[in-house]
Amino acid sequence: MSGSTFGNIFKITTWGESHGKALGVVIDGCPSGLALDEADIQQYLNRRKPGQTSISTPRKEDDQVEILSGVFDGKTTGTPISLLVPNTSQKSSDYSEIASYYRPGHADFTFDSKYGFRDYRGGGRSSGRETIGRVAAGAIAMKLLKEMGITVTAYTRSIGPVSADLSAFDPSAITSTASCMPDRAADEKAVAYLKECMMNKDSAGGVIECRIDGLPAGIGDPVFEKLDANLSKAVMSIGAVKAVEIGDGVAVSTANGSTNNDAFAMCNGQIHKKTNHSGGILGGISDGSQIILRAHIKPTPSIFSTQETVNKNMENIEIAIKGRHDPVIVPRAVVVVEAMTALTVLDGCLLNMSSRLDYLINFYKK
Amino acid sequence: MSGSTFGNIFKITTWGESHGKALGVVIDGCPSGLALDEADIQQYLNRRKPGQTSISTPRKEDDQVEILSGVFDGKTTGTPISLLVPNTSQKSSDYSEIASYYRPGHADFTFDSKYGFRDYRGGGRSSGRETIGRVAAGAIAMKLLKEMGITVTAYTRSIGPVSADLSAFDPSAITSTASCMPDRAADEKAVAYLKECMMNKDSAGGVIECRIDGLPAGIGDPVFEKLDANLSKAVMSIGAVKAVEIGDGVAVSTANGSTNNDAFAMCNGQIHKKTNHSGGILGGISDGSQIILRAHIKPTPSIFSTQETVNKNMENIEIAIKGRHDPVIVPRAVVVVEAMTALTVLDGCLLNMSSRLDYLINFYKK
Amino acid sequence: MSGSTFGNIFKITTWGESHGKALGVVIDGCPSGLALDEADIQQYLNRRKPGQTSISTPRKEDDQVEILSGVFDGKTTGTPISLLVPNTSQKSSDYSEIASYYRPGHADFTFDSKYGFRDYRGGGRSSGRETIGRVAAGAIAMKLLKEMGITVTAYTRSIGPVSADLSAFDPSAITSTASCMPDRAADEKAVAYLKECMMNKDSAGGVIECRIDGLPAGIGDPVFEKLDANLSKAVMSIGAVKAVEIGDGVAVSTANGSTNNDAFAMCNGQIHKKTNHSGGILGGISDGSQIILRAHIKPTPSIFSTQETVNKNMENIEIAIKGRHDPVIVPRAVVVVEAMTALTVLDGCLLNMSSRLDYLINFYKK
Amino acid sequence: MSGSTFGNIFKITTWGESHGKALGVVIDGCPSGLALDEADIQQYLNRRKPGQTSISTPRKEDDQVEILSGVFDGKTTGTPISLLVPNTSQKSSDYSEIASYYRPGHADFTFDSKYGFRDYRGGGRSSGRETIGRVAAGAIAMKLLKEMGITVTAYTRSIGPVSADLSAFDPSAITSTASCMPDRAADEKAVAYLKECMMNKDSAGGVIECRIDGLPAGIGDPVFEKLDANLSKAVMSIGAVKAVEIGDGVAVSTANGSTNNDAFAMCNGQIHKKTNHSGGILGGISDGSQIILRAHIKPTPSIFSTQETVNKNMENIEIAIKGRHDPVIVPRAVVVVEAMTALTVLDGCLLNMSSRLDYLINFYKK
Repeated sequence: MSGSTFGNIFKITTWGESHGKALGVVIDGCPSGLALDEADIQQYLNRRKPGQTSISTPRKEDDQVEILSGVFDGKTTGTPISLLVPNTSQKSSDYSEIASYYRPGHADFTFDSKYGFRDYRGGGRSSGRETIGRVAAGAIAMKLLKEMGITVTAYTRSIGPVSADLSAFDPSAITSTASCMPDRAADEKAVAYLKECMMNKDSAGGVIECRIDGLPAGIGDPVFEKLDANLSKAVMSIGAVKAVEIGDGVAVSTANGSTNNDAFAMCNGQIHKKTNHSGGILGGISDGSQIILRAHIKPTPSIFSTQETVNKNMENIEIAIKGRHDPVIVPRAVVVVEAMTALTVLDGCLLNMSSRLDYLINFYKK
Repeated sequence: MSGSTFGNIFKITTWGESHGKALGVVIDGCPSGLALDEADIQQYLNRRKPGQTSISTPRKEDDQVEILSGVFDGKTTGTPISLLVPNTSQKSSDYSEIASYYRPGHADFTFDSKYGFRDYRGGGRSSGRETIGRVAAGAIAMKLLKEMGITVTAYTRSIGPVSADLSAFDPSAITSTASCMPDRAADEKAVAYLKECMMNKDSAGGVIECRIDGLPAGIGDPVFEKLDANLSKAVMSIGAVKAVEIGDGVAVSTANGSTNNDAFAMCNGQIHKKTNHSGGILGGISDGSQIILRAHIKPTPSIFSTQETVNKNMENIEIAIKGRHDPVIVPRAVVVVEAMTALTVLDGCLLNMSSRLDYLINFYKK
Repeated sequence: MSGSTFGNIFKITTWGESHGKALGVVIDGCPSGLALDEADIQQYLNRRKPGQTSISTPRKEDDQVEILSGVFDGKTTGTPISLLVPNTSQKSSDYSEIASYYRPGHADFTFDSKYGFRDYRGGGRSSGRETIGRVAAGAIAMKLLKEMGITVTAYTRSIGPVSADLSAFDPSAITSTASCMPDRAADEKAVAYLKECMMNKDSAGGVIECRIDGLPAGIGDPVFEKLDANLSKAVMSIGAVKAVEIGDGVAVSTANGSTNNDAFAMCNGQIHKKTNHSGGILGGISDGSQIILRAHIKPTPSIFSTQETVNKNMENIEIAIKGRHDPVIVPRAVVVVEAMTALTVLDGCLLNMSSRLDYLINFYKK
Repeated sequence: MSGSTFGNIFKITTWGESHGKALGVVIDGCPSGLALDEADIQQYLNRRKPGQTSISTPRKEDDQVEILSGVFDGKTTGTPISLLVPNTSQKSSDYSEIASYYRPGHADFTFDSKYGFRDYRGGGRSSGRETIGRVAAGAIAMKLLKEMGITVTAYTRSIGPVSADLSAFDPSAITSTASCMPDRAADEKAVAYLKECMMNKDSAGGVIECRIDGLPAGIGDPVFEKLDANLSKAVMSIGAVKAVEIGDGVAVSTANGSTNNDAFAMCNGQIHKKTNHSGGILGGISDGSQIILRAHIKPTPSIFSTQETVNKNMENIEIAIKGRHDPVIVPRAVVVVEAMTALTVLDGCLLNMSSRLDYLINFYKK
């Protein structure tokens, strides 16, 4: 179990390395009858492509997805959907040097420790390119959720010291700015900050926030399979994430019960919450309000300034990483957070369909 | 799948409600040959008992564990270990009132939404008593890890505004202070703060930190089953946790690569890291240094001041919760975080044993 | 993973040894809202009790089940149902001798090989008593299936050379004859044959057949999770089963396509099959006709005649097993086959509820 | 969960339809360090190719495998191995007619019942071509097992009324005869019988037997994950299998304990069994002797004689299937049984490595 499968009913298995022949994903358990073509998926892959703005690497990754199975006459058949993205632009020669040493902040050392050796070309399986499969599968999950009235929206909340002002939330900015912030003014400041980082041969971190709207109350399970537990795993499994928050997150540790509790109240004949400190989840189960989570992303570990490390001969050395690297991971990871969130929520929705006897009777005795 | 099973090889299934006949856990996949008796487990259960300090409810929970299967002649047999803790002190009459309304910050509403009704006595399955099974199973995981040279230590890092000074780490204080802080001076301040909260009919949150020592490099898997992803799920699945951090955690989002990267260096003929911002995990795999994580715990939602909510007739009402409730969840959750961490790490260690061909050959061809 | 969990959504975990304190099962994923009490379960446990007829051991096993969790106000809550059956009549002294040698046909040797030692009292975990948890969980599955219009019926098809005549199927005979055959005349012959076996200090095998009625077409999944594959695993996991057949079973290997194919034809406006050689499953998915399977059960390995074997000092010895043992396993295993079949089919039905987009839309957009 | 994943640690996920762009498999959890290239896999795929003998369809399937990931410098890296086989020779026009009706003995009707429609080209996902992924993954399992000293050998035991004489077992005949029998004389008779079937526009069934040699005692788990239960599921999940036997199989139901029990005896200082009625498994765990299983395969359902069925307008019709179809499935399924057996046994071996405390200590404290 090298751990490349995610989900219970809507189950995805990703494969591929940065510089192998291709990367891909198999989606098993997609319900039949969903209209699906390559364009549905490609639009999400395009959002994670590099080389599109002044703060991303000029490296070209022309990631074109192909559907190999599971779709017939334009609809999903219920059988596994195999998606493939060829690796066309990767040059292994760029990476031959890093075979000999361990880059700080990367998984070179831990892969060698675990497996005895590693595919050192561009990070191999621990490359950011591994997320291609996640995003492709997430696109299908997003389309299914939309059919069910549920939407998932991720965006950059902050980069380094620069935070978006969410009071003037501009959804169009998410996919059109370099930072993926929903705030064009903050985006400009973030870009300026990142250019400064690049001048200093340094990199920056940031925060991605994600919202789920339209999710009914009742999704998630009470103990180990809490919706927030599964969201945390999903998001923490993305390469550079070092912290996950639900709702008020870290702020709850200094809050008091009187302010942290969300009062229930009637509104238009429905039970709702007057505030949403909980981030839409109580006891691991969705409460019908908006789900909110945040992922804290570490600075790109590949920096151009000199660093100390150790080589495979176990000698102390100094290195200066070359090549083309983004000064920040955040903008390209926004769609990855969105994908992992969508996959988790969809799986929870599918599992929930058999949670009550009356659901079974309605289904089987109609 | 109501989600009461955790783990892949060392697999636990918990059961039981706050006011049912008993609570328990079945541990399946425990290796044979471990010396085990009730006392090994009871010492951990005693750490989560209430009624022991001035800041915990005087409610008595006399949680005595019984081993029902899986141990023969004082050793684990390799077959399922069933552990049972009878519910002896729960009085259902205390809780009859809450059947009619939804307590803010609790799972009453979401359970009704999911299942159509709920066991309203003391929170039922979403009660803190659900963690008894986790702690009991965690005790066995802790004992196995110790045999392998691995230790797990959780403690209170902060309560409300009061933080422990970790520069003078006092391990003995963890199990002997009311706050479970490894710092007796901070403990006194925390207790004073909590008494103030109680006087205000309010409650407080806090932070639990957990360290894993002795874990070799190579544990965890690269993609969805990253060690940090599984730790996040494990810890976030504990009732009141709203954020999880690994290593520097939320601080990475404002850090730069030049300071956040941990340089590798030779030390006594071994590769080690000069700093540990990563918290002992790179690319989802342990790097041989100390693993560090933090859980942010929300304030106890049961507070004695008046709160607005809704009853089952969908009327707005005001309530004042009665009964006996801790002003803070943190100290009693310390051993739960420790248990969930131990279970996760142990499972990762067992999975890792078949990760290389030479391991297979050593095992099967000796 | 010692393998004591079965099922995907409706998931059971059994525990307990022949001579431990108790045996039991945890059922996780039972839908909420099912009326359930101990009597619902006890009636199935009573069917596997020994000491009830002239051909079963006079050993007393007074297996009384207790519900410890997951039921409130007489209905399942959706949370884990823990069932416990105390071991009251087991005397360890009866079994002390077998600690020193390996009984032919039993798992003594393989347990020692795997785990290094074993609980030798009455077979420990490999005792027939292990099936108590299966039968108890199966009782709940049977009750759920009944609510959905699906019934499962197992019976003895043959014992040694004596076969039931199914053309005069008598359902009442299944639970009232010693052999559990649906044919009282065959039962008399089977009892006579078994008495002969007992006189010869020998034992007999037989065949259990099981039918599922009312199952709609569409249950099961096309590749590895075929309904017949899961039924085979379920039934083959019962101690003494050495072969499993679906529909015509072993007879297909000498059949021709022209006779083995089942023609489709319209009947009362419905598509049905004119014959049922397939046993109700095509391509791993139920076809709407009756499901039929058969389990071939080996003769009781504990026989009273002298046998050759080896002791723990690795010496060849001769043994004569003492104690109280049934001359045939079949009648007491009928309810176990029924339980495993019911668990498998129910789980397939629950998984099937999310197999089409229109099911999702009906559920979430109503 | 459309059920396309198999295994716990060595986990495979297959995808692809008969007439899609390609078929393939992702193997997750393959240990690192195994030398692997396409030729290792191709030799197994070649064994299931059609058009090679007088009794197989002249249809050409030029199934060339490509390794897309998981192998670097000629060795497995421990990350997912993605294998792809393009569909080059499939012509959809051949199959357009069958879109309108349900072929007897095929899964057309059950796919429509489950998913609402189906990919009708050549059987889609229920085509025999689905086994390409199984055989490709099985090739890797076979190579790993060989490194551990374990071999798996399947062969045709019988076709229709013609059985191989196993007393003169000729291994070279398995891969060089049309029937895959280890007996050239029986092969000739089987071919003659099949030609007769073809003349009659009919088809035949048969039996495949499989042996595992070199497996140590102790593999498999005692309850639901018995080795024989998992082998049964593995083999029954192959399209046309209708019965599975372990050891003496169906014969046990008419045997007596005195003849069915295998006596233990010392032999060269080792405990062994004097006979092997059990087929190498006791209590679900391997006993160190040869594992033997048999799969009963139904006759090819596609026959050229006229058959009754129903079309999608729910009218009774008569059909005569055209195209190219083998008169028997057995010879091409031999390598599939071998693959599924190898996958099951390997997974059991990997799980077994963490079954004892001393194994853990040896591994982690050396």
